[in-house]
Amino acid sequence: MIHPWGNTNMQRNVDIAIIGAGTSGLNALSEVRKTGKSYVLINGGELGTTCARVGCMPSKAFIQVAEDYHRTNVFDRYGIEGQQDLTINQQEAMEHVRDLRDIFVDRVMGNSTDEMGNELIEGYAQFLNPNVLQVGNELIGAKSFVIATGSRPRIPESWQRFGDRILTTDDFFELDTLPKTLAVVGMGAIGLELGQALHRYGVKVTGIDQISQIAGLSDPVVNRTSIDILGSEFPIWLGAAAHIQEQDGKLKISAGEKTTFVDKVLVSVGRIPNLDRLGLDKLGISLDSEGLPPFNPNTMQITGRPIFIAGDTTGDRPILHEAGDEGKIAGYNASHDEILPFKRKPALTITFCDPNIVTVGTPWSELAERADIAVGEMRFGPVGRALIMAKNKGIMRLYAEKTSGKLLGGAMIAPRGENLGHLLAWSLQQSLSVHDLLKMPFYHPVIEEALQAALYDLWQDLEPHTTPLRELDVLRED
Amino acid sequence: MIHPWGNTNMQRNVDIAIIGAGTSGLNALSEVRKTGKSYVLINGGELGTTCARVGCMPSKAFIQVAEDYHRTNVFDRYGIEGQQDLTINQQEAMEHVRDLRDIFVDRVMGNSTDEMGNELIEGYAQFLNPNVLQVGNELIGAKSFVIATGSRPRIPESWQRFGDRILTTDDFFELDTLPKTLAVVGMGAIGLELGQALHRYGVKVTGIDQISQIAGLSDPVVNRTSIDILGSEFPIWLGAAAHIQEQDGKLKISAGEKTTFVDKVLVSVGRIPNLDRLGLDKLGISLDSEGLPPFNPNTMQITGRPIFIAGDTTGDRPILHEAGDEGKIAGYNASHDEILPFKRKPALTITFCDPNIVTVGTPWSELAERADIAVGEMRFGPVGRALIMAKNKGIMRLYAEKTSGKLLGGAMIAPRGENLGHLLAWSLQQSLSVHDLLKMPFYHPVIEEALQAALYDLWQDLEPHTTPLRELDVLRED
Repeated sequence: MIHPWGNTNMQRNVDIAIIGAGTSGLNALSEVRKTGKSYVLINGGELGTTCARVGCMPSKAFIQVAEDYHRTNVFDRYGIEGQQDLTINQQEAMEHVRDLRDIFVDRVMGNSTDEMGNELIEGYAQFLNPNVLQVGNELIGAKSFVIATGSRPRIPESWQRFGDRILTTDDFFELDTLPKTLAVVGMGAIGLELGQALHRYGVKVTGIDQISQIAGLSDPVVNRTSIDILGSEFPIWLGAAAHIQEQDGKLKISAGEKTTFVDKVLVSVGRIPNLDRLGLDKLGISLDSEGLPPFNPNTMQITGRPIFIAGDTTGDRPILHEAGDEGKIAGYNASHDEILPFKRKPALTITFCDPNIVTVGTPWSELAERADIAVGEMRFGPVGRALIMAKNKGIMRLYAEKTSGKLLGGAMIAPRGENLGHLLAWSLQQSLSVHDLLKMPFYHPVIEEALQAALYDLWQDLEPHTTPLRELDVLRED
Repeated sequence: MIHPWGNTNMQRNVDIAIIGAGTSGLNALSEVRKTGKSYVLINGGELGTTCARVGCMPSKAFIQVAEDYHRTNVFDRYGIEGQQDLTINQQEAMEHVRDLRDIFVDRVMGNSTDEMGNELIEGYAQFLNPNVLQVGNELIGAKSFVIATGSRPRIPESWQRFGDRILTTDDFFELDTLPKTLAVVGMGAIGLELGQALHRYGVKVTGIDQISQIAGLSDPVVNRTSIDILGSEFPIWLGAAAHIQEQDGKLKISAGEKTTFVDKVLVSVGRIPNLDRLGLDKLGISLDSEGLPPFNPNTMQITGRPIFIAGDTTGDRPILHEAGDEGKIAGYNASHDEILPFKRKPALTITFCDPNIVTVGTPWSELAERADIAVGEMRFGPVGRALIMAKNKGIMRLYAEKTSGKLLGGAMIAPRGENLGHLLAWSLQQSLSVHDLLKMPFYHPVIEEALQAALYDLWQDLEPHTTPLRELDVLRED
């Protein structure tokens, strides 16, 4: 006898199943909705994006307080008196950070999933076969899938025995009080942002990374300057892996010849894509050593399957606006018959340390070997506005094709680097040349004048270099 | 008998005579030098640009201190304690401002006129006839001329009797101590910048303007919001002209129904072009009521004469980068046989109050009557990064052609408005549309996201509004 509630009845069939309701999943959803096709959105664990819960937003709130507090170090030269009596109440500061975080999490959730009804399924999804997912007791059949399951912080296995003395961004913002001493392992964006801010809150911080580049900088000049600037605030040990032992109730952390004792270790050595519990083995796809399936970054399609992947899950470009774009591409292609390749935006990374570290376009590592690359450089020491702001530390380096003058990319550690990065990324998006850029308006006195100076320096390095530069176009009388 | 040192011998003849060694004169000089032609640069009064001596640079230094001091008002909510015991030593602050100013003046002079020898003539020039200038005892004949004599603050004649109690930017930065009470007459860029900063230094400030627009804002919504934001810091009286009387040793200043007593009045009601002593009557040109000759803003040529005018002297666009462009155009055309019309940059004005007030492109006053204009708006209240910075006050309004979507201009009062203004001005320079702009990378969380939101709002107002917006281009397979 066939039970009336048997498998075939229990399976719910939709056009598209989106797994993950974070940034990329929600962006995929918005594209799917435009088509009017049927869908489900499946989410395991807490609702709310990585960005709002434990990422961009609380970290910026944490940094803002540190930056304002640190800024008071210039007061003496400005004639502002009483700075030495300022103190920071860490507990109140952390509460302020969490208050803001809660606002952002509420807002993300309010915007997206509140009115979804039974199209939102809470639970962890697993492929039973290439066409069917299991979520708890429910079976979901779909014509196409979007995998947008995000990532989680990576912790070396041997360190897990140190329990809550090992912190990641998942628990960091829940701290009521800050430790007195702390090591940050991993000098990427997150490690630098939180490490510098913690130092400014009064924590004795040591930064450690096994490689010699910080913030992912492949430009050796910008990397060197960045290490000098940030390393003058707190010690940064580079080039040797960190080891931890317990000793006298403290954590003894060492790297190469160096050793220090700390209360806690903040681990920021990257994130693991949440793919391991998805049952990807049922899809018959070969996965790489990280457990990642092969995919096309312009279609987000997993090779040869009606399955699309987006956001941090891909292990690539783990930043919000890219996760959004990937979600849109995946959502579009999951809900259309013709799979379209989309143009990706020029790379832009911002580390919100102070000064900001920014990379745009093609990284130096891909250009260093080429003979046809011109380089322009500007240090912020003499930049008028930077001097006025008492923020005249930093360097900008720009790369262009020597003959065409086409801008290719750049790297900087710079005051208002986040804003300068947008000007450069927008210019790259439009394939502008150095000549085009030198025709743009630069007000005075603004930080953008440092970019102008770097562009003049870059122009000097172009070939052929025969005709004088003309910063204004002749008006055509059409 | 003809004296061997007679007139014809005493006259020195050159190809080009540049009158004025400020920003536009020096830019003209750089273009003239490229041609290898002979020239003189004549300068009356102090060397050094208006910008470095009494303009952009010292004002920004003055503002920076005020902004940092004012910023401490957020400390309480951040858990930073002791803010209430901070004080500002006005005398030290003014010394800091002058120290920076001296650095900038030295730098301008070092860069330009130091090595000029007898091509630099110090003295005031006057036309004897359309081909010859007199400077002291010297006669200079030239084939063409560049007039770049700058401007000076305007003071109503009836107020001159109040002597040193009437301040302009010419003497403001020389003050050792600040007055206890002060009125600022003129709520343009300079009046707003210095008025707000003075208030933040602890001076009791009243701002007054006879018109109802501040910072030159013709957009009524941005103007209203700006008045609300800035007026919540210090009183701003608009719409009635100021009158001053002496009473009980104080200055009694009134406008309409309102009256207050102040120690000093800072007058910032515009600047007068320095044309009155040039002997322009010898040129046989008809001058307008301001004493200005007619000129073409694309060639900078005074109609029908081999004479070119540039910089603040023109009474138009009195901002440094425009003065630089005008100097370049004037210098180019003064030293070439064919007179070329050059394309001017999109308008960009920045008032460096806090938040910044910025206008770009076509002002609202030129668009308000047109039926084919779309408007987009974003308030900064909910902008994530602005909220984190505790700077979520402001509004941005953008204008575009309804059918083509071409961006035309905008106005804002906004945190980091100066940086957002550059993104918009660069976009206008390239004639970008709203669709183009929505394809640009916007990082997260950044102030640029407010611009993105304003663009989405603007896009909603475009016509036809039938196809869904696609933020990513399809990759063409060439």
